[in-house]
Amino acid sequence: MKKNKILLFLFLLGSLTAFAQKKVEKWGTFELTLHGPQGGNPFIGISLNAAFKHGNEVYKPEGFYDGSGDYKIRFMPDEEGEWTYITYSNLGTLNGIKGSFICTPPLTGDHGPLSVKNTYHFAYADSTRFIPFGTTIYQWCFQPDSLQQETIQTLKHSPFNKVRFLIIPPYSKEYLKGPDKLNNFPFQRDSSGNWNLSRFNPVYFQNIEKCIKELRSIGVQADVTLFNPYDKGWGFEKMNQPTARRFVKYVVARFAAYRNVWWSLANENSFIKWMTDKDWDNLFQLVEKEDPYHHLRSIHNAGRIYNYTLPWVTHVSLQYYNAVRVFGVTPLLRDIYKKPIVYDEINYEGNISSRWGQLTGKQMTYRFWVAYIGGGYATHGESFVNNPWISIGGKLIGKSPARIAFLKKIVDEAPDLNPIDQYYIMNMAGEPGEYYLIYFGKEKPGDWKFILPKKNLKDGMRFKADIIDTWNMTITPVNKVFEVKKLNNYQFADKDGKSIQLPDKLYMALRIKRINK
Amino acid sequence: MKKNKILLFLFLLGSLTAFAQKKVEKWGTFELTLHGPQGGNPFIGISLNAAFKHGNEVYKPEGFYDGSGDYKIRFMPDEEGEWTYITYSNLGTLNGIKGSFICTPPLTGDHGPLSVKNTYHFAYADSTRFIPFGTTIYQWCFQPDSLQQETIQTLKHSPFNKVRFLIIPPYSKEYLKGPDKLNNFPFQRDSSGNWNLSRFNPVYFQNIEKCIKELRSIGVQADVTLFNPYDKGWGFEKMNQPTARRFVKYVVARFAAYRNVWWSLANENSFIKWMTDKDWDNLFQLVEKEDPYHHLRSIHNAGRIYNYTLPWVTHVSLQYYNAVRVFGVTPLLRDIYKKPIVYDEINYEGNISSRWGQLTGKQMTYRFWVAYIGGGYATHGESFVNNPWISIGGKLIGKSPARIAFLKKIVDEAPDLNPIDQYYIMNMAGEPGEYYLIYFGKEKPGDWKFILPKKNLKDGMRFKADIIDTWNMTITPVNKVFEVKKLNNYQFADKDGKSIQLPDKLYMALRIKRINK
Repeated sequence: MKKNKILLFLFLLGSLTAFAQKKVEKWGTFELTLHGPQGGNPFIGISLNAAFKHGNEVYKPEGFYDGSGDYKIRFMPDEEGEWTYITYSNLGTLNGIKGSFICTPPLTGDHGPLSVKNTYHFAYADSTRFIPFGTTIYQWCFQPDSLQQETIQTLKHSPFNKVRFLIIPPYSKEYLKGPDKLNNFPFQRDSSGNWNLSRFNPVYFQNIEKCIKELRSIGVQADVTLFNPYDKGWGFEKMNQPTARRFVKYVVARFAAYRNVWWSLANENSFIKWMTDKDWDNLFQLVEKEDPYHHLRSIHNAGRIYNYTLPWVTHVSLQYYNAVRVFGVTPLLRDIYKKPIVYDEINYEGNISSRWGQLTGKQMTYRFWVAYIGGGYATHGESFVNNPWISIGGKLIGKSPARIAFLKKIVDEAPDLNPIDQYYIMNMAGEPGEYYLIYFGKEKPGDWKFILPKKNLKDGMRFKADIIDTWNMTITPVNKVFEVKKLNNYQFADKDGKSIQLPDKLYMALRIKRINK
Repeated sequence: MKKNKILLFLFLLGSLTAFAQKKVEKWGTFELTLHGPQGGNPFIGISLNAAFKHGNEVYKPEGFYDGSGDYKIRFMPDEEGEWTYITYSNLGTLNGIKGSFICTPPLTGDHGPLSVKNTYHFAYADSTRFIPFGTTIYQWCFQPDSLQQETIQTLKHSPFNKVRFLIIPPYSKEYLKGPDKLNNFPFQRDSSGNWNLSRFNPVYFQNIEKCIKELRSIGVQADVTLFNPYDKGWGFEKMNQPTARRFVKYVVARFAAYRNVWWSLANENSFIKWMTDKDWDNLFQLVEKEDPYHHLRSIHNAGRIYNYTLPWVTHVSLQYYNAVRVFGVTPLLRDIYKKPIVYDEINYEGNISSRWGQLTGKQMTYRFWVAYIGGGYATHGESFVNNPWISIGGKLIGKSPARIAFLKKIVDEAPDLNPIDQYYIMNMAGEPGEYYLIYFGKEKPGDWKFILPKKNLKDGMRFKADIIDTWNMTITPVNKVFEVKKLNNYQFADKDGKSIQLPDKLYMALRIKRINK
């Protein structure tokens, strides 16, 4: 009774700012909570957004209903100083609410949200380079808290800085194992037990947000997958376009203010038979319109490859295994798309009966090297019979993560990897004249003549070299200095014809750096 | 004097059908010639076209000025029977001319113009399959008649059924060698010797037409290249967009009625610095609009690859050598573009100092096999120091043409080559359950276990096999019958575990055909 009286009082006040921070760090999440009606269907019919202003900057994020009479608007400020806001709603009690907050300096180590840099790469808002090393844990959000925590601890000590995961549960045995989760779905049921696709389940989305924030807290990108074709039992595949659009709007309103979010429109999109490419076009454009921060956007394909050249796609998120089984494909894809190439599924290290989950650690490591030496990026996954990391997370038991960490260290220390002389040399990347990374994969060249493509080279430039064993994770400096001299129209070579003796092993690489004068 | 009187008489008549056939074979070229004024600039300002009708079919090809007071309209009828026509012009004397002709059955061996068939392939208008085996002879139209005739004779006895060539001469020594050609350019000069880009040179285009018709007479496709970046002396690079558009309209009006024409908007388009991708979009759309027969349309790239996904591009015409140096790229490109993949430049067999012209015959043959085994098509070229076929034509001296002819024979006898199990097997094409072509390239598998991907297979199906030596051009039947049985979720194998012993040689292939019951 007492509680009801307070609610009545609040209602009579019109509406009230139940909660709003007074300080938020740059690229953090400001949240404004308003109380409003619970009756009817607050998920539809009530519009709510707010204009956030700082100097000439204005952002207009959409609000959303979070249950229990709570209406929320989230905002990610990108400038320090005072921000003011005012709400807009078709409901008088939610309309015209004003306020302000102070945006403080970013947290230590926070560089902001990501965008594409130099056509083929990524950078944070503060220009710090971001080099994706992804992994895949489709259903980690739907696991018990203890398992989620184990996953976070594993990620923290792994090379992986981007996680691909689903936000609609697949209909699968793994998912059903999750305790207390069976009634936890994105939608609510009506009294007869049927899904009411016009009523979201806020508790469900709060769980996903907790996961996104956990990743954010350890500096990991959340590659949020909006739709998937694996709902072969829940019944959400009945979503028509208006429902799908409402779902997208709700998700973007809730998640966009988290700086580590990427939007993946779907996993294996062409397996979702009820969606046409035109539908995907429309949903992409909806995300683009609704997300004030322009987080990265792509879609993960099955057989029918979406047209990644379209302007609302920020990067390629490709499932095509052969593209990382041979050299030379990534430079071609870069030229075709003029966007970053992220191989978001290259088969998984594991031992399951499905052939997409049977890579050895060596094969996975090889595919990673092929991706990065082409100027692209790759995403890992493990599918062991007794340790289904790609489904539920937990711990990593494969042999590739340590080697991927070794590769990451090399790549982190290198300039942006771009192909050098790409039409003729398929296994070399770096920065012409300064830095060359050469990966031999399954070739064993033995004696490697010190010859480099001519770009940016001049007679007399001097270089040192390291022999890299990508599998055994060793870096062995070559005890020579190489001085180049023009060899022909295309190449410079060591002036004395020196070469480098490579061990008779698979998976070797060379790193060549210019010696500064 | 007498002639002038006749002309005066004709002029007084208003205009007159100077010449028009009464009979034209299906897919042949009907030509209507009208006499009109020679004064002013007949290339601009006078519009002329005609409506050709047969039943409910109507075509409206544009006319063009052919010099000496001749105004022409060409038309390619695609139905037998009577066609009627009427002309439209802003010049009264050319307007409202009516006539008719009879379209007779096609010439023996004529299958009509080409279009795309089954997404990745080509067919003639009568549904006969066309499998491109291209070659490149950039400047053959600008050579002496005797050399043109030699080229035609060479082509006639070669495997090549498509020729890529330029219709604007490059500024080069080779071109300058051609006698009597120095004053033969697409445009006319004004009295001060400067180019008048609003006046075409009909004699120049008549020569190109002669070449197109020569190719047509031997059943070879004319891949007509409209623009190129090699005019570094003539001055046509000064063409602005209105001039370029007038050039395109004139070319399409003149050539479209030849059934063997393909439109290639450019060679190495991104080297033409004065054209943007938007300009190319516009020119593509102009060709699409002006050509009543919708001949095949593409563009040949340099570094910046044009967006071949755009709807006005009928097929991919790619210059990217590495795509045919490794297996697996073509199936990916098919999925990306959903169009036929034609590798129109894969380097040339030859011995010149430029590295793009140094392939051995083995390398060229290998690249052809890699292209076709991926479900694509390739284009040949030869660049020997003393025999610059790609520039001027003449005779072929390379080692690859005989091997390409051998490949062509195999492909002609095969069903459409499409990848089988493309995500896991990169070197196999054919028709699942019926026909398998497997190319081993640089691998020497020795003992090849008879295992096929499961698609369309059933226990008990029986197969025979041939061992193909692609370099020595031998086909050796295997003296065994293979009967398949399910091996696992993905594969069928010979029920007795039989295998095929392959010789210890490079460039071997296997052909496996089902034995009909």
